[in-house]
Amino acid sequence: MNDPQSATEPSAAPAPGSRRPGGRTARTRAAVRDAVLTGLAEHGYPALTVEYVAEHSGVHKTTLYRRWGGIEGMLADALALAGEDRWTAPDTGDLDGDLRALAHEVAEAFADPAQAAAPTAFVAAAFQSPRAADALRAFYEERFRRCETVVERAVTRGEAPAGTDAGAVVRAVSAPLFLRLFVTREPVDAAVADQAADTVLAAVRAGAFVPQPAGAEGGAGQS
Amino acid sequence: MNDPQSATEPSAAPAPGSRRPGGRTARTRAAVRDAVLTGLAEHGYPALTVEYVAEHSGVHKTTLYRRWGGIEGMLADALALAGEDRWTAPDTGDLDGDLRALAHEVAEAFADPAQAAAPTAFVAAAFQSPRAADALRAFYEERFRRCETVVERAVTRGEAPAGTDAGAVVRAVSAPLFLRLFVTREPVDAAVADQAADTVLAAVRAGAFVPQPAGAEGGAGQS
Repeated sequence: MNDPQSATEPSAAPAPGSRRPGGRTARTRAAVRDAVLTGLAEHGYPALTVEYVAEHSGVHKTTLYRRWGGIEGMLADALALAGEDRWTAPDTGDLDGDLRALAHEVAEAFADPAQAAAPTAFVAAAFQSPRAADALRAFYEERFRRCETVVERAVTRGEAPAGTDAGAVVRAVSAPLFLRLFVTREPVDAAVADQAADTVLAAVRAGAFVPQPAGAEGGAGQS
Repeated sequence: MNDPQSATEPSAAPAPGSRRPGGRTARTRAAVRDAVLTGLAEHGYPALTVEYVAEHSGVHKTTLYRRWGGIEGMLADALALAGEDRWTAPDTGDLDGDLRALAHEVAEAFADPAQAAAPTAFVAAAFQSPRAADALRAFYEERFRRCETVVERAVTRGEAPAGTDAGAVVRAVSAPLFLRLFVTREPVDAAVADQAADTVLAAVRAGAFVPQPAGAEGGAGQS
């Protein structure tokens, strides 16, 4: 989720309140992001302090307060940076392969404690900070938008009916995995990922992701 | 989720460490549960203390420590009590109606701040306490087990193929709702609930919830 390279690119968006684009500002922003992620993963949001970030980033407390306002601002900015990576959705050549690859990517990312720590900490922080929740929503909206290409290609290839709700499809694929990871606390493995892909593929083929007019078959209660 | 009646029934399981069944013990347990829920909803798990529970339950601190060990034990017991309610899965007469009712029940419960507070606080606490996570897993396993009857009846009626994985079906119905509520922080409404039910119904009818032998159609990657 976090590509350290993207943070130091000249094209990276300037930090909120920053006056100097790129270069030193980008490095400061990345250092603060790294300290926030380490603190979140090691201690959790409730224990994350400006003092901790100052100590672990080498950025002075007064600079942190001036530029980010406080911990919530740093957390939101760390998520914004995470969203600036170059990740693209899988392109295996067919919808079955793409949905399966998406599901497996989620399962594998969260099976690796090092990869799982930061996104898990962001999801946890959103329970305690409305600003973190807003940043998380923006992150996932953008991330799922990148995934929608999988469905758009499938419609072009004739694998999915025209009018298929791409956003609903890509959310449905990862939903059973996130349910187990963050709500029911049940194990996630390749079989769960395959089940998620199988479910959504069958529903796409049956046209269940094409919004129905109110009162039409399968649309009871949508009016 | 929390039926106060069930906590005072003679059949309620005794509190951990309790020597006297029912009556006063059950009332104490319910009082502690209520204080834990209030504290979680108002302040969150990180700020929940034995002092707070003592003050709000009227149960002495030494009793709380002796009987529950500490906050984690009280939280786990509150979840165990929540799981002792009389909730049963909807029985509308067909699978379409039952899945739709299940999805709408989740959407409506979390649209009501009073109903949503306790379950949301439990989900949040599980990020910080392994014992809360274990209790949450046990709660949802049991809750989804009650839901499986919906699928079993559908198989009997010939609405779902024999061998349909009932546990996967009922999890898939609520997964897109929980994804939006607790991960992507996107709004949940009746249309999202209907989409979840439509998706799963189509996949059930297509046999996507019948486990495939490795290498079979739709089972790529399961080997």
